[in-house]
Amino acid sequence: MLGGLRVIAAGTSLITASVPAADVVSLDWRPPAWGDQRATRDLMQVTGPSVDEANLRAMALVHAVRPHLLGVRPAIDVIPDMPRKGLLHAGPPIAWEQMCGPMQGALIGATLFEGWAKDEPSARALLGSGEVPLGPCHDHSTVGPMAGVVSPSMSVFVVGDGDRFAFATLNEGLGKVLRFGAFDDEVLERLQWLRVVMGPTIDQALQETGPIDITTLIAQALSMGDEGHNRNLAATSLLARRLAPVLAQAPDGASALQFLAANDHFALNISMAAAKLALDAAADVPGSSLVTVMCRNGVEFGIRVAGTGDRWFTAQVGPATGLFFPGFGPEHANPDLGDSSITETLGLGGFAMAAAPAITRFVGGTAADAIATTQAMRRITIAEHPVYQLPTLGFAGTPSGIDVRKVVETGVLPVINTGIAHKEAGVGQIGAGTVTAPSEVFVQALAALAQHDLDRGTR
Amino acid sequence: MLGGLRVIAAGTSLITASVPAADVVSLDWRPPAWGDQRATRDLMQVTGPSVDEANLRAMALVHAVRPHLLGVRPAIDVIPDMPRKGLLHAGPPIAWEQMCGPMQGALIGATLFEGWAKDEPSARALLGSGEVPLGPCHDHSTVGPMAGVVSPSMSVFVVGDGDRFAFATLNEGLGKVLRFGAFDDEVLERLQWLRVVMGPTIDQALQETGPIDITTLIAQALSMGDEGHNRNLAATSLLARRLAPVLAQAPDGASALQFLAANDHFALNISMAAAKLALDAAADVPGSSLVTVMCRNGVEFGIRVAGTGDRWFTAQVGPATGLFFPGFGPEHANPDLGDSSITETLGLGGFAMAAAPAITRFVGGTAADAIATTQAMRRITIAEHPVYQLPTLGFAGTPSGIDVRKVVETGVLPVINTGIAHKEAGVGQIGAGTVTAPSEVFVQALAALAQHDLDRGTR
Repeated sequence: MLGGLRVIAAGTSLITASVPAADVVSLDWRPPAWGDQRATRDLMQVTGPSVDEANLRAMALVHAVRPHLLGVRPAIDVIPDMPRKGLLHAGPPIAWEQMCGPMQGALIGATLFEGWAKDEPSARALLGSGEVPLGPCHDHSTVGPMAGVVSPSMSVFVVGDGDRFAFATLNEGLGKVLRFGAFDDEVLERLQWLRVVMGPTIDQALQETGPIDITTLIAQALSMGDEGHNRNLAATSLLARRLAPVLAQAPDGASALQFLAANDHFALNISMAAAKLALDAAADVPGSSLVTVMCRNGVEFGIRVAGTGDRWFTAQVGPATGLFFPGFGPEHANPDLGDSSITETLGLGGFAMAAAPAITRFVGGTAADAIATTQAMRRITIAEHPVYQLPTLGFAGTPSGIDVRKVVETGVLPVINTGIAHKEAGVGQIGAGTVTAPSEVFVQALAALAQHDLDRGTR
Repeated sequence: MLGGLRVIAAGTSLITASVPAADVVSLDWRPPAWGDQRATRDLMQVTGPSVDEANLRAMALVHAVRPHLLGVRPAIDVIPDMPRKGLLHAGPPIAWEQMCGPMQGALIGATLFEGWAKDEPSARALLGSGEVPLGPCHDHSTVGPMAGVVSPSMSVFVVGDGDRFAFATLNEGLGKVLRFGAFDDEVLERLQWLRVVMGPTIDQALQETGPIDITTLIAQALSMGDEGHNRNLAATSLLARRLAPVLAQAPDGASALQFLAANDHFALNISMAAAKLALDAAADVPGSSLVTVMCRNGVEFGIRVAGTGDRWFTAQVGPATGLFFPGFGPEHANPDLGDSSITETLGLGGFAMAAAPAITRFVGGTAADAIATTQAMRRITIAEHPVYQLPTLGFAGTPSGIDVRKVVETGVLPVINTGIAHKEAGVGQIGAGTVTAPSEVFVQALAALAQHDLDRGTR
C-alpha cells in the first residue's frame, strides 16, 4: 500500500490494470442478466416473499427424500409407461434426425440388443422410420448417463422412498460402452451379461441385505474424495465391500464382484437415481424458481423448473473443456450429453468439487480451483444440503438447489463435471472435463416464471 | 494500522498483549532446546554437511522401499528369532512388573490363547516367573498396535520388498479386543478364528491375486480421507473390493468378507508393517539424525535413530488428549501405547492429518487444525514423501522423516494419532485422540549423536 491509495473495482479488469502501485480489491461483479433488459425486468417481476417461500418449500420437499437402493429389475417391469417397443434417451426431447453420433450409436446398439434389427443399417432404417418411439428418460422417473439409452429388457436400479421410485441403468464401466455410443459385439455381450447375470445377482443380494440408504452412502463417499458424479471410487468401494459377504454366497457372486472391482463408476448411476428421486419431489411447486432437472442430449441442454412443471427450456450446448485421452482433442469432442447432471442439480458433482480435490487431475485445475468452484455455486443455490457435507470446508453442506433467479442475477452458470464422448457413433469416451450450463435456458425459464406471475395477477 | 506502529513479536504473548492498537505480527519462536544449555551445545555439535548428507542418504533408503503384501502366516514360521515359547509386545523393552494394565491383560490373553496357562491367575504366575521371555516387536521386524502382543501361533501379515520383510498381526476390530488388554472368551475365540480361518483364507487369496503394492494402496487411500493410522476406511474398502472376487471362491470367503466389511481398521496393521519395512532400511546409517522408530509401551515412549542403530531413548509417556466414549474420561485413560506410531515416523497418521479432515470429528479439532498439524510437522522433517501426497495441500508430499535436531531446535514435538485404552486390564478402548512425543527422548538422542561425533573426532 503506497500513498494510501485504495481502489475497489467492480467488473472489467481493464480499468484496474492501469492503476499502478495501489491496493486493488477486485469485486466479481457484472451487470445482472448479462445486460439483457427483458431478463432484468423479469428478475424484478419474479421476486418477493412468495417466491422465496415457494423455493424454501420446494427445497424442503427435496431434502426430505431419503432414497434407498431396493433392487435391480428389467426396465419393462418397473419403469412407468415404459413402451414395450420403445427406447428412452438422455436429455430433453429430440428427433432421430437431429441426434448426435453417440446417441444414434447407443440407440442402434439398444435396437440390436433387443433383437428388433439384425445389423446397423436395418437398425438405422427402423429408428428413422419412427416405428420405435423415442423419449426422454426424465419423462419416466429415469436417468441415464451420457446417451442414457434404456431399452425394455435392460436391468435397471430401483431406488425408492415410500411410494416414490426412480430408475437408472447399471453402469457398464469405461472404454467401449453403449452410453458413449459404441455398439459392437463386445458392447452387446456386456449388456447381455448385465441383463442375465449381474442384474439378477445384485438384485438377490439386495433382497438379502435389505434396502441400502443411498444418502448415507454418498455422504460417507463425500468425506472420501468422491463428488458423486465424475469420481465414484469411494461409493463403489463401500458398496462392494458391503455387498461382498452376500455376493460370495451367490452362484455368480465371484463374477459380479469382479465387475464391481474393475468398475470405479458403478455407484454413479445409483447416485443419479437418488438425485432424481429427491428432485422429483419438487417437480411441480407453483411459484418456485428451483431447477429440478438439468440434462443434455448431445445437441441441446435442457432444464425444468419447479414453478413450470414438466416444461422444457432448452438451448444449444457445447463440448466440455478438460483433459483428453492420448490421441484425442477438442476437434473430436461431441457436445455434452447425459442425464448425469441431475447430480449437480441436487448439489453433487461440480457443486461438491471441494470434496474431491483429486478429481482436478482428471478434469483439469488445482485443489484451490475445486474449492473455488464449490464456493461459486453457493451464489446460485438456495440452501446447503443437510446431509451432504464437505470436510475441507469445515463440514458445510454442499450448495444445493439452483435458483433460476440467482443464475440470471449473478451471471454465475452451474458447473457440471462430465465425460467427453467422441462425436462419431461407435468410438466411445475420449476425455473428461467440465461444462457450464448455457445462460439462455435460465433466461427462458425466468421469462416463463414472470409470465406465470402476470397470468396469476390478472385472474 | 494506527499511527504506523508495527510490532514483530517473538515468543511469549505477554509482551504484545500490552501493545494496544498496533499491527502485531506474532512469530512462533521459542528458545531452542526448551532452554536446555547442554542440548543447545549438542545442537551445535551435530551439524554440518556430513549430518545433512547422512540424513538425505537415510531418507533415500527409506523412500526407495516398495512394500508389498505377500501373505499371512503363523508368527513362528516367519518372524526372525521368534521364541517358541515367548511373546512380543509394543514399545521399548519393559519388565512384566512395570507394565501397564492393558499390556499385562494382552499378555495374559496370549498366554491363555497359546494354552500355556488355564486361567488368569496361572497366566499371571507364569508371566511373573520370567519363564516366558518378553521382548519388543521392533527387535523382530514386527509391529503391533496398542499392546501389540504377538504369540507364536498367531497369524501375521508378511510384507516384503526383495529380501527384506516386516510383520504385523491381523487387526481384530474395535470393542473388546486383545490389543486393548481384554482377554475374555469372546476375545480368545476371535483370535482362534483369525488363526484357523481368516489368516489362511486371506493368505490363499493373496497367493491368487499376487503381491499387493501397499505404497499405491495407501497413496490412493490418502486421496480418500484416510491418514493411514486412525482412519483406514478407504484402504480397508479398496483392499476388500480387490480381494472379494477371489475370496468369493474360497470355502470361508463369505465369513472373511463379512469380517472385512465390519472392520474399518483392517488395513491399519498393513500400513504399519509397510512403514516398518521402509524405516528399517535406515536402521543403521552412521551420522544420521533420522528417527527410525517411535513407539510406546503404556509407560514409556521410545525412539531409535539411524545414527545410533538399535539403541533406545525412552521417557515417560502421558495419555492422549481427545474424545472419550460415553461414560469414560481422562481419569480412566492409560498412558499411550502401541507401535502404530511407526506410521507417523514415516509421515502418515498425525503427519498426514490434512488428508483426513473427517478424522477431526473422532480425535477432536477442526479441518483447519488438521491442515495446521501437517504444516507444523514440516518444521521437523527432512523431506516430502515422494508417493504419499495430500490433495488438499495441492498434492504436496506428506512431511516425512523426523530429524532429531529439528525437533530439539524448534521445540515442535511429533503429533501422533492414537486410540485410548482403559488403564485396567480387560476393559478395552475408551476413546481416541492425539499425543505428542515427550521432548526428553529427542534431547537424549541428540546427546548420543553428539557423543558419537566426539568419539569419531578423537579416533
